[in-house]
Amino acid sequence: MKIPLTRSIFFTGFMATGKSRIGTLTAASLGWKFFDTDKLVEERAGKSVADIFATEGEPAFRALEMDALKSICGQGPMVASLGGGTLLNPGALELVRRHGVLVNLYAAPEVILERVNRKKESRPLLAGLDDTAKLARIKDMLAARQPVYDLADHKFESGEDTPHHSITRRIIHRLQIEELDPLWVELAERRYPIYIAEDLAGHADSIAEKVGASREAVIVSDQPIKAAQGPMLETLRHALRGAPTFYWRGGEQEKTLASVQKLLTWMLRKNCSRKTVIFAAGGGVVGDMAGFAASVFMRGVDFIQVPTTLLAMVDSSVGGKTGVNHPLGKNLIGAFHQPRAVIISLSALDTLPRGEFLAGLAEVAKYAVIRDDGLFDYLMDNAEAVLARDPGAMRHIIRTSCAIKAAVVGKDEREQTAGGRDVLNYGHTFGHAFEYLAGYRDLPHGLAVALGMRCAARLSVLTGMWTEAEEARHNALLDRLDMPSRFTGRFDAEKAWDATGRDKKADSERRVFILPRRIGAVETVVNPPRDAVIAAFESVAGASGTAAGKGEHP
Amino acid sequence: MKIPLTRSIFFTGFMATGKSRIGTLTAASLGWKFFDTDKLVEERAGKSVADIFATEGEPAFRALEMDALKSICGQGPMVASLGGGTLLNPGALELVRRHGVLVNLYAAPEVILERVNRKKESRPLLAGLDDTAKLARIKDMLAARQPVYDLADHKFESGEDTPHHSITRRIIHRLQIEELDPLWVELAERRYPIYIAEDLAGHADSIAEKVGASREAVIVSDQPIKAAQGPMLETLRHALRGAPTFYWRGGEQEKTLASVQKLLTWMLRKNCSRKTVIFAAGGGVVGDMAGFAASVFMRGVDFIQVPTTLLAMVDSSVGGKTGVNHPLGKNLIGAFHQPRAVIISLSALDTLPRGEFLAGLAEVAKYAVIRDDGLFDYLMDNAEAVLARDPGAMRHIIRTSCAIKAAVVGKDEREQTAGGRDVLNYGHTFGHAFEYLAGYRDLPHGLAVALGMRCAARLSVLTGMWTEAEEARHNALLDRLDMPSRFTGRFDAEKAWDATGRDKKADSERRVFILPRRIGAVETVVNPPRDAVIAAFESVAGASGTAAGKGEHP
Repeated sequence: MKIPLTRSIFFTGFMATGKSRIGTLTAASLGWKFFDTDKLVEERAGKSVADIFATEGEPAFRALEMDALKSICGQGPMVASLGGGTLLNPGALELVRRHGVLVNLYAAPEVILERVNRKKESRPLLAGLDDTAKLARIKDMLAARQPVYDLADHKFESGEDTPHHSITRRIIHRLQIEELDPLWVELAERRYPIYIAEDLAGHADSIAEKVGASREAVIVSDQPIKAAQGPMLETLRHALRGAPTFYWRGGEQEKTLASVQKLLTWMLRKNCSRKTVIFAAGGGVVGDMAGFAASVFMRGVDFIQVPTTLLAMVDSSVGGKTGVNHPLGKNLIGAFHQPRAVIISLSALDTLPRGEFLAGLAEVAKYAVIRDDGLFDYLMDNAEAVLARDPGAMRHIIRTSCAIKAAVVGKDEREQTAGGRDVLNYGHTFGHAFEYLAGYRDLPHGLAVALGMRCAARLSVLTGMWTEAEEARHNALLDRLDMPSRFTGRFDAEKAWDATGRDKKADSERRVFILPRRIGAVETVVNPPRDAVIAAFESVAGASGTAAGKGEHP
Repeated sequence: MKIPLTRSIFFTGFMATGKSRIGTLTAASLGWKFFDTDKLVEERAGKSVADIFATEGEPAFRALEMDALKSICGQGPMVASLGGGTLLNPGALELVRRHGVLVNLYAAPEVILERVNRKKESRPLLAGLDDTAKLARIKDMLAARQPVYDLADHKFESGEDTPHHSITRRIIHRLQIEELDPLWVELAERRYPIYIAEDLAGHADSIAEKVGASREAVIVSDQPIKAAQGPMLETLRHALRGAPTFYWRGGEQEKTLASVQKLLTWMLRKNCSRKTVIFAAGGGVVGDMAGFAASVFMRGVDFIQVPTTLLAMVDSSVGGKTGVNHPLGKNLIGAFHQPRAVIISLSALDTLPRGEFLAGLAEVAKYAVIRDDGLFDYLMDNAEAVLARDPGAMRHIIRTSCAIKAAVVGKDEREQTAGGRDVLNYGHTFGHAFEYLAGYRDLPHGLAVALGMRCAARLSVLTGMWTEAEEARHNALLDRLDMPSRFTGRFDAEKAWDATGRDKKADSERRVFILPRRIGAVETVVNPPRDAVIAAFESVAGASGTAAGKGEHP
């Protein structure tokens, strides 16, 4: 994927830090022109820089240099390598900042010396010195110029072992990240960005750098992701300088404390430290487990989420819930541990099975109904593009969904406020009952929630909270998004009623339902009439139900 | 233990909430007088309240009532039961607040009705009514008087199933907690108190109530504590209304994720919820594991520490570090999870083995050297009382130690600042080396630290940071506190040197030592000369060393 860059790139740096070579490669990669201010001046003056200094004096050279700088600034986005003193000209820095970004390339003095000696280029400033004296001179000059280099927007080490094209890639990726406008999740103590673009795996290092995470990375994923998204994982690993990668087998039944301990042991064997950052590449299970591991490894390390399913993108990206299951119940062991950043690569959706895609889409529809009639209308008007997983449409609905969840969660970060995170359970009380009736097989959670939303809409009509016209509009969206409209398992009103009293958010005699009042607004309703609840169930299930596992689930 | 109460107790509450009975019991328990304002007025007037109202009018009654209140307020600390309207007199509330605390007793209207009917006392206000009308009248009157009851400093339910003496005990315990002046540990987000007194296990419920923890408690301990401190655990369990108690077998080798999972499973079987508060009664291992369990059970529940060793009291009470060991290293899995409160019962020290006591005392000496010459002088002057575990001396040194650790940790809560928590490692770089040389057997950590402190003091002389006179004063304290002065294991200079580079806080080629500059101030020194380090080791070890496991360790 190309994230277009729009601003010129000005390289500054000491001799032998690769300004020309990396500048040329950068320009070539972007299809832009490349300029070297010293060479421009020489071409225009028809003599060498040394000659200009000797015959016309420094002020004349500086004037020529500024002319050159002004002329290239006018030539649209381009790449330039600046002479050592260019930025000392009055007005030069302002000119550079107005037209682009300033990038400093640096290297250790010893590396510079080695390069200078190897290249045998004429370096008048070092002429006639032995290596010890050269190194001392280099260090002196570096110290003198450091204040100018410190003005740079970005700094990149042009190290001994890093090929120039790798540095070029890093620079472009880093500048592309600056072009993106992430969604910021604001928390009580800090904030983190969610980056959403077509293909971001290759930018993982730039995003980590941007948020201040260390470069000591490991990747955690699972076998199904490896099978479906192998190239993405390779890109991620490459971007993270060959970071070691751990794979679980995959699946909810593996979501245990023992599996987390396996990861922790692996991390210790890989000499991970308190500085390690864990990249969790996968669906909800991988994110929950890797996030929990991050929260307990040496009492807490950073983690960055790279969700690969739509559900994980719109649900797990926000909220900080991490954890594992216990034989006695789901998600009973865990921690609140917020990621440092979330990287959503829309291309991961290309290989997502249709059922999983729709399960995530049900959550998107849920966000629309509970909080955002604008998103509702957008989904209505763009259902085809959404179902075709059009990147533009996906970007919009994922970002909007994350923003809604962030707004809800921000008020109730640790789930301690009544009427806080509850609204996110829209469709869930009915949905859980359907999952229970289906024996937790054959009916994915997201689709159970979609059925539950229809029941909630019905119950809202039956309790006089909204009209049948509104219910019809609500259900029309679910239809357009190919959500199921009937529960095809065996329906038992008594069991369904009991199940609504067994929800983990409910006390035994306190049934809590989130019901819509209009599109974009819901209310908590406690203990609605039993008859109405059963009638709501029967609007999508009932006597016509056939055996579980058959029927209309996509 | 008796925490003396100094302020009068005034009971207010509706009819049949036990004001007289509980007031009488409270007074008896404290050895104080008990007064009933209505009865006092009747005695003085020579006629019943109803007669006074009828013959002299309400204003006359109110005047008599205020006279009675004033006269009892003058009679030193006492217990009084106030009439229903007493607090409505102008000035009455101020008088009560000036002389004591106001305690409200309450009960459900149904309980009140039942008691009134059972006692067959004359209740003119309810005369001639059937039960339905009586209940309605009770509810009306309760609602009218609620604003007065809401003025109370404390409220206690006089429930149907709670014996009056239990309520009395709770009231006294709660008021005793108010008399204590806890040490507050101030954190970025919140604060928690450390209560230190001779015998506080019976006050656990009052402290939990004071800090706003729920009444849904479990106790976590281990078998050695059960053997040594059985009565304390029984008192704790009784105070917590028979809270279920979980016991680990005990010992560092049990400090694993699997052991934590056992506790989590047990908690789920006991129907613990997000509201559960875990009381961790034991040494450092119990505290670390129970605290970690609290941090991950349903993504975090409250815990209250009840440390039973001196080391746990002065070290684990502050800092929020919880966790377990991994086969590849100590404390590698864990979380920062702060307790809601710490309850230090000094009587727990009575049964502590001498070696464990001295190990804790070494840490106290460490706090004195790194931060507090006042504590240093106190230990010097009161060494005998300290070694005799005199409660007054223990209270002072524990409180001071916790305050020092709180001040250090407060600046570096999550161990992310260089030069922050580091100073707490005084004596540890050498100490860890001694533990390594002793094969992690026979030399308790605290005593290794004491030896390490002597080495650090020597190294400080050798590097010119302080004088031999100051070193002598430093070591004189360690001598007075019966700390070991020689490492009796086999000493190998090469291995010792290597071990100082293997400390978890050090990089391989970066040896970090905390060295004293004067009593009360230390500095971080990186990579001191090898010869000086070995000479420091040899000041307490060397050629004269005998086989490990023998010698002077107490």
